[in-house]
Amino acid sequence: MAHKPPATRSDYVVFRTLQTRWNDNDVYGHVNNAVHYLMFDTAVNGWLLDNGLLQLKHPEIVFIVAETACKYHAEIVFPDVIHAGMRIEHLGRSSVVWQIGIFRNDVQTAAAEGRFVHVHVRRQGLKSVPMPVSARGKLQPLVR
Amino acid sequence: MAHKPPATRSDYVVFRTLQTRWNDNDVYGHVNNAVHYLMFDTAVNGWLLDNGLLQLKHPEIVFIVAETACKYHAEIVFPDVIHAGMRIEHLGRSSVVWQIGIFRNDVQTAAAEGRFVHVHVRRQGLKSVPMPVSARGKLQPLVR
Amino acid sequence: MAHKPPATRSDYVVFRTLQTRWNDNDVYGHVNNAVHYLMFDTAVNGWLLDNGLLQLKHPEIVFIVAETACKYHAEIVFPDVIHAGMRIEHLGRSSVVWQIGIFRNDVQTAAAEGRFVHVHVRRQGLKSVPMPVSARGKLQPLVR
Amino acid sequence: MAHKPPATRSDYVVFRTLQTRWNDNDVYGHVNNAVHYLMFDTAVNGWLLDNGLLQLKHPEIVFIVAETACKYHAEIVFPDVIHAGMRIEHLGRSSVVWQIGIFRNDVQTAAAEGRFVHVHVRRQGLKSVPMPVSARGKLQPLVR
Repeated sequence: MAHKPPATRSDYVVFRTLQTRWNDNDVYGHVNNAVHYLMFDTAVNGWLLDNGLLQLKHPEIVFIVAETACKYHAEIVFPDVIHAGMRIEHLGRSSVVWQIGIFRNDVQTAAAEGRFVHVHVRRQGLKSVPMPVSARGKLQPLVR
Repeated sequence: MAHKPPATRSDYVVFRTLQTRWNDNDVYGHVNNAVHYLMFDTAVNGWLLDNGLLQLKHPEIVFIVAETACKYHAEIVFPDVIHAGMRIEHLGRSSVVWQIGIFRNDVQTAAAEGRFVHVHVRRQGLKSVPMPVSARGKLQPLVR
Repeated sequence: MAHKPPATRSDYVVFRTLQTRWNDNDVYGHVNNAVHYLMFDTAVNGWLLDNGLLQLKHPEIVFIVAETACKYHAEIVFPDVIHAGMRIEHLGRSSVVWQIGIFRNDVQTAAAEGRFVHVHVRRQGLKSVPMPVSARGKLQPLVR
Repeated sequence: MAHKPPATRSDYVVFRTLQTRWNDNDVYGHVNNAVHYLMFDTAVNGWLLDNGLLQLKHPEIVFIVAETACKYHAEIVFPDVIHAGMRIEHLGRSSVVWQIGIFRNDVQTAAAEGRFVHVHVRRQGLKSVPMPVSARGKLQPLVR
């Protein structure tokens, strides 16, 4: 709960547009805190799919999630459209630390800021596997 | 399980575009059957909101769901984009029977067909309340 | 929307106890209509697992969902405990039509009644496969 | 990603038993990372409800979530039964920092460890409000 000001759009490198759903709003009339993690998964895996770094059918090697976190600065509410900003904080040998900013509609400061740690593992046994050079080449431009 | 052929896009009057999410895919690698109902809620309530027939903040009168159903003709899979076709099968005094077709990407036959029965009620006590004439006027063009 | 009275516990053969979650409550303060389908999936697949009729790891033959439906008679609300009553309405060669009653806490009439059609298929290609005699033998006592 | 060993049951003060659902398992056959947050919400709010610190109907003052985090040590899989261990890391004037351990079945080391920051606010405007003495008295025994 440090008092750093919320991130702005310029803190991120690429963006993906995500919809909210009616059912994301909870009893308090705002998007429930767990839904942000559905958005992180969708943004990161959507980007990986679009860039050929994720295979949907029977992959032997996958990215699994080792750690996640989120700070909530402001409410988001269905039917808001979300712009998920993404950058890579750390590109390791077999791990990627993503930073994700959740921006609602045309608001310029982040409604929420997430951290999402992916580890590149063999599905069988969950042992980490170094990412191939080609994968690192695609991820490198997102490092900031 | 009648052997009527799946609906086509021409069976519906208005369409809404919906995203799938990574987490919609279940252990079988396709969108889980319950997710279709999240889509129905989002399509119908999104349309109602856009047309001024739904209020998000502290409404006294709401549409609640009395009955739902879905037939699944074909798999949908994240990251498919969904086109939800909508028409009204029956416009009652205080109820609306929606028919919803779930179309994936540019496929012309429905991957799933839903039925979604809304009842117009007072939130307190859940007693049905006739829809105002203005609401019926907005819903009427969707009846087919 | 026939005016048949809600089912009672005696209409079902076996029961499973299910929890509600905080996030099941939607903006209207009750469990959202789609959550009932998560409960159907959990009750039916939980029973199949317990009876050796479902395999979690890399199954070649699975039950997939062809059709679902639910009538909502009364609200359920987190933290209600749910008793899901189950019976088989139709035991086909390669399909099972389940009826599921959702009972809240110690209420004797159903808060909701669901229909859940499972088809026994080869995962690859989704062609239906007759259920083995041993499976039918386990399912038969639930037919009513 | 510090290399502290996973927590054990003795690190927590109170426990709540939670079910997994069929649909919690994602395409990798394990409970998706976002589901852990549904469990945190359910465990914490369930405890608050049981102890008279949360009101479900039209509360003016609520606990909202300001920050969440989770480290995943091991997979959990439906139909595992979860034992959610809880303790309070910091009891502030108007905030509570919860630590939550997710234990599967009878495993003694945590499958996941969460942090969940609640702030006591007026629903209208989201301004923080000091917790009453009686609430602090109920929360105090969980501080460790």
